Amino acid sequence: MKAAIFRGKKHIELGQRPDPTVQETTDAVVRVVRGCVCGSDLWYYRGINHHKVGSIGHEYVGVVEAVGEDVKNLAVGDFVIAPFTYNDGTCPACRAGFESNCEHGGAFGDGDNDGGQGEKVRAPYADATLVKVPAPADGFTDAQLASFTALSDVMCTGYHAAVSAGVKQGDTVAVVGDGAVGLSAVLAAKLLGAGRIIALSRHADRQALAKEFGASDIIAERGDDAVRAVLGLTDGAGVDAALECVGTDQSIETAAGIVRAGGMIGAVGVPLYEKFDYKTLFWKNIGIKGGVAPAHHYIPELLQHVLDGTINPGRVFDYSTDLDHITDAYAAMDERRAIKSLLTISQP
Amino acid sequence: MKAAIFRGKKHIELGQRPDPTVQETTDAVVRVVRGCVCGSDLWYYRGINHHKVGSIGHEYVGVVEAVGEDVKNLAVGDFVIAPFTYNDGTCPACRAGFESNCEHGGAFGDGDNDGGQGEKVRAPYADATLVKVPAPADGFTDAQLASFTALSDVMCTGYHAAVSAGVKQGDTVAVVGDGAVGLSAVLAAKLLGAGRIIALSRHADRQALAKEFGASDIIAERGDDAVRAVLGLTDGAGVDAALECVGTDQSIETAAGIVRAGGMIGAVGVPLYEKFDYKTLFWKNIGIKGGVAPAHHYIPELLQHVLDGTINPGRVFDYSTDLDHITDAYAAMDERRAIKSLLTISQP
Repeated sequence: MKAAIFRGKKHIELGQRPDPTVQETTDAVVRVVRGCVCGSDLWYYRGINHHKVGSIGHEYVGVVEAVGEDVKNLAVGDFVIAPFTYNDGTCPACRAGFESNCEHGGAFGDGDNDGGQGEKVRAPYADATLVKVPAPADGFTDAQLASFTALSDVMCTGYHAAVSAGVKQGDTVAVVGDGAVGLSAVLAAKLLGAGRIIALSRHADRQALAKEFGASDIIAERGDDAVRAVLGLTDGAGVDAALECVGTDQSIETAAGIVRAGGMIGAVGVPLYEKFDYKTLFWKNIGIKGGVAPAHHYIPELLQHVLDGTINPGRVFDYSTDLDHITDAYAAMDERRAIKSLLTISQP
Repeated sequence: MKAAIFRGKKHIELGQRPDPTVQETTDAVVRVVRGCVCGSDLWYYRGINHHKVGSIGHEYVGVVEAVGEDVKNLAVGDFVIAPFTYNDGTCPACRAGFESNCEHGGAFGDGDNDGGQGEKVRAPYADATLVKVPAPADGFTDAQLASFTALSDVMCTGYHAAVSAGVKQGDTVAVVGDGAVGLSAVLAAKLLGAGRIIALSRHADRQALAKEFGASDIIAERGDDAVRAVLGLTDGAGVDAALECVGTDQSIETAAGIVRAGGMIGAVGVPLYEKFDYKTLFWKNIGIKGGVAPAHHYIPELLQHVLDGTINPGRVFDYSTDLDHITDAYAAMDERRAIKSLLTISQP
């Protein structure tokens, strides 16, 4: 089958991988309908984070093509959303609703496991991992397919930031980061009832989408200037919650600087910070919670909101191509011409 | 007036300070009935943390002796509990219920401000700071006076650990630290409905009090052995919340090691850790929240529990003396002969 192959820094190419088959009785094989490129893929592409040579892409939706004999809840032909990590569904972390910390879990497209930037994927623990989407008689729209794909990672990750920070009705929330996750965090804060949402963004296209997603205020400043601007908007008090969707020293320090005494940071940016010291939060009674989003836990509720039209997280995709043009999909994001690239790999 | 004077490492003495008077129209002067020695005082005494030469002691209860003209809610003769920090009651932090982060706040007994280890204290922002206790016709018992004194800091600090960690009905909670704050945290977890409370303690007297306060399990091990023991008690899953009441690298690492994926650390130990890195929590989806307890915020509800007999936090005092024997009060704690020393300074 055709699949994107990560070769190293700035080197993605279309290649071949063996067609996946059912190997364990709990496996399913999924024909990928939509895949996409994640901000974290871009970090591998740029050489900031290490990625093994091989398969890549952890976000995908598709159609079940084969199932192992112990798969009970899925059948060939089912349309499914894959969370970006697979999980056994039975370990203590899974039972606690943190499937991304599953003892026997792993990630798709990690160099070895099949990736979502390819024609097919072997999905382990299929019953516990994949979420079935009820098929309407008249098929899914392209917008729905894009939103389902956003549920594979970015929307759940943005939601995880907001949930981890305990965002509730009426809260004032700031979102640090205007990538696809940050924009999804704006949408998540809105969904959870935030009364005021301050998006930190300096790009016109992202500012526009942040507003569409529910941002009430936009702050274009960065660093100390951003802190001053947010405090200025909140009578010097700071926000109830800051959603940290970047993971650098500057972004986490900005988050720490804009939260009120007793507030929360929801942290989902892959942490590359080196200088950040929790003790600075202690003295302000600020809490921090987050991590790798348990997408499987959130997909059912967010899917319902997509299906009823409440949210349209697929709007983060502003560039679309196919698997043959995988290098363009990365280049568009690398050159900031795109927020996030969608890959049309097959049709439902 | 007589007051304890901190002179430096291992050097506390009874000395003289000027009788406090009303200086601001919002001040009250309180005649101290009970004071005590805090674990954090001990750290100054041992030279681990710096303390200015001068007044000391931030915990006290007493009788209002004078009030400024703008004090509306207190009158001469009222019995009051002082939170260990004073606060203006009007800044954003105070309005958010985090009075310990008040913009205009400060601590009693910091070398300059009158301390609770003295005969009298000038209390700034008296209306916003002091909490009045309704006087019964037949006076307070000694046990009640001890419990009121515990509400000045340690019980509120233990409660803050549990509240910050979001302890709720049925949770499995571990408490790291068996000092007065750790023991109070056990009591707090019980009060919030924890179903199982694991106390990490290696001293028989403290283990006994932990059990009296509601601990269901005692772990005497430390470090990695403690982590293994707690995981062993929880089928390898870890606890919903760990209450960190020490503040050393070993204690915070133990807390981080025993919390389940997605759980919380409630942190109230004065942070002296140097190696702890939040990123280790991120990868386990563990959150951390805490800081200096907003005692003023908690005293009214905890006072009600003391008055109706639900809790008896004054049990942490197992050594009692008077101001003339202040050096003994410190020595008893320093030599681990006492969990916490109470000072009888006057009678209500």
